[in-house]
Amino acid sequence: MSQATDGEPGHAEVRALLEAESVGLLSTISVHRAGFPYGSLTPFALSARGAPLLLLSGLAAHTKNLLADPRACLFVGDRTAADDPLAGARASLLGRAVRVGGADEGETRARYLARHPRAEAYFELRDFALWELVVEEARLISGFGSMRWLPLKQA
Amino acid sequence: MSQATDGEPGHAEVRALLEAESVGLLSTISVHRAGFPYGSLTPFALSARGAPLLLLSGLAAHTKNLLADPRACLFVGDRTAADDPLAGARASLLGRAVRVGGADEGETRARYLARHPRAEAYFELRDFALWELVVEEARLISGFGSMRWLPLKQA
Repeated sequence: MSQATDGEPGHAEVRALLEAESVGLLSTISVHRAGFPYGSLTPFALSARGAPLLLLSGLAAHTKNLLADPRACLFVGDRTAADDPLAGARASLLGRAVRVGGADEGETRARYLARHPRAEAYFELRDFALWELVVEEARLISGFGSMRWLPLKQA
Repeated sequence: MSQATDGEPGHAEVRALLEAESVGLLSTISVHRAGFPYGSLTPFALSARGAPLLLLSGLAAHTKNLLADPRACLFVGDRTAADDPLAGARASLLGRAVRVGGADEGETRARYLARHPRAEAYFELRDFALWELVVEEARLISGFGSMRWLPLKQA
């Protein structure tokens, strides 16, 4: 059912990170400084199929970037390893961001709010919209020197 | 003297973030999945002119990316705002990463170790090298809705 639990080694670890953390770092391709990578802070929730859901403002640089080029990376790290972040598990999820709309919008919004109750006010603002990162591949780093690429099938 | 304190509004705030934090998120352009942005965890220190110094392993994906395309972004956020990260100050520094070598290497290494004493062992490993992010521009977000681009002159 989920992108991250399809049985291949490492998928359960990625899934556990996505369940445990709720803020990630989004990398996009900059419009403002064309072609440069651009990193920004992004809270996230998970869609029914386990893909990251992002609530993005149309005024934000990363949203302008995604509208021009949907390729993105969401980095999620184990915050409990804050004293020695390089020893902690972390994953970089590469995929394409798509606007959530139509029939999925209500359920997706409920899923997002379950994780980020304070975001309710943002939904009242017209320039905020939900996006899903349709993950194609993940780089999982379980700790120092332990790293691998994981293909991720779409549900 | 430093890149981040040249007197323009916001530069002191960027500088304060770079002084207070020691781990950032590096965005690069992926080689493995060509053209995708790629985010990874990266401890940093500061060079004499206030630019981020990174100690990178030749085995790491981000290093392979920088060797193919030096354009990068270092995101640095206020960790003390962990309960509500969107309320905290954060900056995305866009620039080009260059290998540190020659006469600068000893001083740079000392600066890096002053901030990351545990990194001493990495310097013994041949595949680790110091890089400097020569910043060209910064996006500073001081809190919700307060954001701007800052040009950064090079020293």
